Amino acid sequence: MGNTFGQLFRVTTFGESHGGGIGVVVDGCPPRIALSSAEIQRELDRRRPGQSRITTQRKEPDRCEIVSGVFEGKTLGTPITVLVRNEDARPEAYEAMRETFRPSHADFTYQAKYGIRNWQGGGRASARETIGRVAAAAIARKVLTTLFPKIEIVAFVTQIHEIVAKINRSKVKTAEVEATIVRCPDKTAAKNMIDLIEQTRAAGDSLGGVIECIARNVPAGLGEPVFDKLEADLAKAMLSLPATKGFEVGSGFSATRMCGSEHNDAFEKRGRHIGTRTNFSGGIQGGISNGEDIYFRVAFKPTATIAREQDTITSSGKKTKLAARGRHDPCVLPRAVPMVEAMTALVLCDHALRQKAIAKS
Amino acid sequence: MGNTFGQLFRVTTFGESHGGGIGVVVDGCPPRIALSSAEIQRELDRRRPGQSRITTQRKEPDRCEIVSGVFEGKTLGTPITVLVRNEDARPEAYEAMRETFRPSHADFTYQAKYGIRNWQGGGRASARETIGRVAAAAIARKVLTTLFPKIEIVAFVTQIHEIVAKINRSKVKTAEVEATIVRCPDKTAAKNMIDLIEQTRAAGDSLGGVIECIARNVPAGLGEPVFDKLEADLAKAMLSLPATKGFEVGSGFSATRMCGSEHNDAFEKRGRHIGTRTNFSGGIQGGISNGEDIYFRVAFKPTATIAREQDTITSSGKKTKLAARGRHDPCVLPRAVPMVEAMTALVLCDHALRQKAIAKS
Amino acid sequence: MGNTFGQLFRVTTFGESHGGGIGVVVDGCPPRIALSSAEIQRELDRRRPGQSRITTQRKEPDRCEIVSGVFEGKTLGTPITVLVRNEDARPEAYEAMRETFRPSHADFTYQAKYGIRNWQGGGRASARETIGRVAAAAIARKVLTTLFPKIEIVAFVTQIHEIVAKINRSKVKTAEVEATIVRCPDKTAAKNMIDLIEQTRAAGDSLGGVIECIARNVPAGLGEPVFDKLEADLAKAMLSLPATKGFEVGSGFSATRMCGSEHNDAFEKRGRHIGTRTNFSGGIQGGISNGEDIYFRVAFKPTATIAREQDTITSSGKKTKLAARGRHDPCVLPRAVPMVEAMTALVLCDHALRQKAIAKS
Amino acid sequence: MGNTFGQLFRVTTFGESHGGGIGVVVDGCPPRIALSSAEIQRELDRRRPGQSRITTQRKEPDRCEIVSGVFEGKTLGTPITVLVRNEDARPEAYEAMRETFRPSHADFTYQAKYGIRNWQGGGRASARETIGRVAAAAIARKVLTTLFPKIEIVAFVTQIHEIVAKINRSKVKTAEVEATIVRCPDKTAAKNMIDLIEQTRAAGDSLGGVIECIARNVPAGLGEPVFDKLEADLAKAMLSLPATKGFEVGSGFSATRMCGSEHNDAFEKRGRHIGTRTNFSGGIQGGISNGEDIYFRVAFKPTATIAREQDTITSSGKKTKLAARGRHDPCVLPRAVPMVEAMTALVLCDHALRQKAIAKS
Repeated sequence: MGNTFGQLFRVTTFGESHGGGIGVVVDGCPPRIALSSAEIQRELDRRRPGQSRITTQRKEPDRCEIVSGVFEGKTLGTPITVLVRNEDARPEAYEAMRETFRPSHADFTYQAKYGIRNWQGGGRASARETIGRVAAAAIARKVLTTLFPKIEIVAFVTQIHEIVAKINRSKVKTAEVEATIVRCPDKTAAKNMIDLIEQTRAAGDSLGGVIECIARNVPAGLGEPVFDKLEADLAKAMLSLPATKGFEVGSGFSATRMCGSEHNDAFEKRGRHIGTRTNFSGGIQGGISNGEDIYFRVAFKPTATIAREQDTITSSGKKTKLAARGRHDPCVLPRAVPMVEAMTALVLCDHALRQKAIAKS
Repeated sequence: MGNTFGQLFRVTTFGESHGGGIGVVVDGCPPRIALSSAEIQRELDRRRPGQSRITTQRKEPDRCEIVSGVFEGKTLGTPITVLVRNEDARPEAYEAMRETFRPSHADFTYQAKYGIRNWQGGGRASARETIGRVAAAAIARKVLTTLFPKIEIVAFVTQIHEIVAKINRSKVKTAEVEATIVRCPDKTAAKNMIDLIEQTRAAGDSLGGVIECIARNVPAGLGEPVFDKLEADLAKAMLSLPATKGFEVGSGFSATRMCGSEHNDAFEKRGRHIGTRTNFSGGIQGGISNGEDIYFRVAFKPTATIAREQDTITSSGKKTKLAARGRHDPCVLPRAVPMVEAMTALVLCDHALRQKAIAKS
Repeated sequence: MGNTFGQLFRVTTFGESHGGGIGVVVDGCPPRIALSSAEIQRELDRRRPGQSRITTQRKEPDRCEIVSGVFEGKTLGTPITVLVRNEDARPEAYEAMRETFRPSHADFTYQAKYGIRNWQGGGRASARETIGRVAAAAIARKVLTTLFPKIEIVAFVTQIHEIVAKINRSKVKTAEVEATIVRCPDKTAAKNMIDLIEQTRAAGDSLGGVIECIARNVPAGLGEPVFDKLEADLAKAMLSLPATKGFEVGSGFSATRMCGSEHNDAFEKRGRHIGTRTNFSGGIQGGISNGEDIYFRVAFKPTATIAREQDTITSSGKKTKLAARGRHDPCVLPRAVPMVEAMTALVLCDHALRQKAIAKS
Repeated sequence: MGNTFGQLFRVTTFGESHGGGIGVVVDGCPPRIALSSAEIQRELDRRRPGQSRITTQRKEPDRCEIVSGVFEGKTLGTPITVLVRNEDARPEAYEAMRETFRPSHADFTYQAKYGIRNWQGGGRASARETIGRVAAAAIARKVLTTLFPKIEIVAFVTQIHEIVAKINRSKVKTAEVEATIVRCPDKTAAKNMIDLIEQTRAAGDSLGGVIECIARNVPAGLGEPVFDKLEADLAKAMLSLPATKGFEVGSGFSATRMCGSEHNDAFEKRGRHIGTRTNFSGGIQGGISNGEDIYFRVAFKPTATIAREQDTITSSGKKTKLAARGRHDPCVLPRAVPMVEAMTALVLCDHALRQKAIAKS
């Protein structure tokens, strides 16, 4: 259970890091959307391992195949399945994991829940699972663009450890994000982040940080007022990503130190439509988008896999030492940027279809 | 759509702040759980308006009726409906709202989404909607206690504006929380918070803050590994509450400034079971509970309704001024404590039943 | 679980035959649909007990209250709750049922499933549960009429025991159905049916029969191709009604004795649209409506409650005799006609919204 | 939408008859169930084309691959994906279908719904879609057997056109069903059926018939009382299979001609448990299994694809003639037997897990 996301644009991911492959079934995609595997591949390449010197060196080309749901370059309205084979799996590197619980990994909890686990790598808990999400989101973006041609979703790294970037959130473009391997559009900060990541890796340690995401030109009216508030679905989406520890939308935790008279966003006429003078709300009020920029921040913890030796115990309860030997990311954030965008696209696409169902046509 | 929460313990809330009433249908509650309306009433009384001098003075007794699903003091396994009538509604106080969008409220977004809204009060966006959640959670707690007799869920106010309490999270008990009207177990901080709230109300303004919640004695194995991670469902649950802007679990945003070697929670044998030496994970690893304390923090913005005059515009786009005349909370946190506990109980109860469905029996 | 029907037009019913009341929450109704309690009452009056001399004499006015979701005569887009109180409940009439399993009722199976049951009447298994469905369907019909102004849904009794009516399915109108208390538009057959029902009641026995339903002017394109085929959802809808034993759509069981060359419906141009020369398909092909009349038949068993003495056993396994003393219908079909129409409306409304979500706008 | 079946044992099928392949994702399968691809293959071989002289001669080995969710021969609790590649697709045989609507097929309705269709074969409407269902059901059977070791699900052909078999429903075994290529355990009838199918094929025509299914040793207590009644979910399951036109459970349509005094199933003590003297209820009362044999019948129409020339029209509305040239089944029933069993297993497995979630443990 729990491998499906969305009510109308329904995304079901499957697959373990070591096994036949990883993929996704998207049910509910509208028909007649132009879609090619190249468009999906482009997004997968952004999350792929081995893309730069600061990511894991696992060599996975992550070539995707569209197995179903597309015909003569267009979606059929039927389930779209995308499959990516695992290629550079090295289960032998995980032999030690058969009996040992890695600290702050999911080994112990999977064992507690299921009484069994695929110890050859992270199994479902591996970040490889997000391949399915990114592939689905490439489709979601096509749907969103059909509905709202000017929509933009841009995520970027805004903090690594103590290094905080200076970024004009409202202006930042994808090209600037992609311009550095750490995906931080502040070039000075980016350089420092890259240096710190390399030093930290050399020291056998790992780092966390913050990713910010902005969605522009989302029309007013998306989101549901009670449990499926737009920010609630975004929060769930982000906290469902591996290694995330926190989420804040608009003013976020800083709102807790403000007074209502400062924090309230005054409405104002802006040409023919209604906008707000400030945007502490983060583009969402009462769970529903108000037409302003939607923005939020996601906290990522330092990667649990580190080369440094750590204390732990085996499944039979014996004390032991552990030092990671698999290839891994010293800092997940650069590769998590497309994942954050992906989950944002899935949430917005689902709510766009939900709104379409009840809107006056 | 979006008025139902949970997969197996399914909670559907209904009702507007002004109208026939507010309530909830709980589908999926196991049979033969002892349940009385007094048990539900006790929780409702904790969230009820007018309970202290620092909350809204709206006089709602919020008497609940169990309409269905309980027979001779026990749940039947059929849907349990709880209904609370609105009594002290004063729609005339909202006459000005008919045409005016209150800043940082949901008036504008409801109008954008639905093309209609109940302008006599907040409608579905009113915090009165949470009556249904709190009632449902009173039932969820009974189910949880049946399954895990030692489980405890305790939320408390840990920050109001700039006042930060000192609280030993692992020890705090409900009685200490209920001992102050601001629901902060640090008595010194509580006094300061109460004073600040009263001053702020007098000044026609409002305050935000942080609520922390801890769940103890939750067994390992609850939660689903991918989209329905326990922290993801908690994040959604919290961000679905009115006025929330952020969520962090375990180390939260502070994890972003830590190294993996500091942050990883080493496993250790603790008597007959396996525990962790530290608990930066917040009791959840890979989306699944690990048996340690689950804890998280929720950011609340300052109440949008303030007595001070604000600029805004009407639905036809004319500039106007607005000063709240309805009764309202200068700070939602004291009354939000039972709401945070309620949503926690709903998430845990749902995941407990989900785990029961697949566990070896 | 299992008390919710529909994906987008989501209907959750609640309540037992003896207890606080019966009702429904409808989530997902589009906003700005004109709706009054009188419109709901009209449909409830058609299913109400005591409406004629051939139904149960239980005196339930079944007055409905709209508790939420409607404002100034229009739907808000929020959950619509309709509540009907139980009034003429006589639990004492059921005292004998406390320990005794009535044959072909749900007493034994509820006990087996839940280990508890509301023995004061049928509980959730009572036909009173369908009040919620009929109320929801009154709303669904308003939505359908908004989307497809010419849509018509007409059900009627076509067989009671051995009496088979002659009815021109394609022409029959609601007024003709309502013209007889047995709801059979063939007046001669209707008279015979009524006589037979009265004789059978006098003899302490009960009767079954067949209801047919036709939906006209449903546009092509409603229904989903795989599991949620339109006929599959109709079949589920009908078999979820109390006392139903069978369902057939279009040619139904008679198709099993036909050859493909006879059964295939040839396409033909009909003015500007495409129709079929025959309609053995019953208006649905590959799970999707084709624009022709949708029609199907539903088999109802004879009422399980009979005055005649029957053998049975108690919950402790002792042999005993039982003769019904509660008020009951000697034949459920006249009152089941609005229930069949109701479930049809719910299925069509849900699929109409689902199609709206993906259709080119 | 509509490609997922089940609440807890969730089955999502994907794939078109011509394209990358056909498959299924099963989410919610309990962990530690022994499972091999051979077990799945065995069931697929029963539904495979070309298995006998009375089925289509399309040469599809239908080799399955388990892509995910199984490790060292056991289920992991994560999604199980099964993939079958299309091999003997001959899209050129369908060139004529590009513009022409085949009578009583889904060509026209897919076009009406989606504005696009995969005209190279039946697309999603092809019976090949059921590969995913049969694969999922092979897994469901393993789960059911783990929970209820004595459970048996046996379907068989009981009628082809006018030939009605004589079968002792309560005794029939799978081996007897598999003993004839038409899957009818009455050998005399089977011979006549086979002859009739061969003659009909030679005449360029097709046949329908009835399949009956029995589930033995299902415990009392499975099913939900209202919308998700066990018979309602079975009805939906069966009507979601291609070419089905009707469903009846227990006494079915024959109940409509019986009196309550005949039809009621008297309870009786049978050793230590409670049974019924007769079983007109078909093993289900009030939507919940009562421990008796569950049995039902499914009506199949004659195959729509026939070699004989038929009138039809093109998508632009021109009259034309059509004679099938693709390979097809003159009668779908022999291959539909494993499909009926599959859908039965899916329904029972889902309800077994649902009951497990609420049962006293």
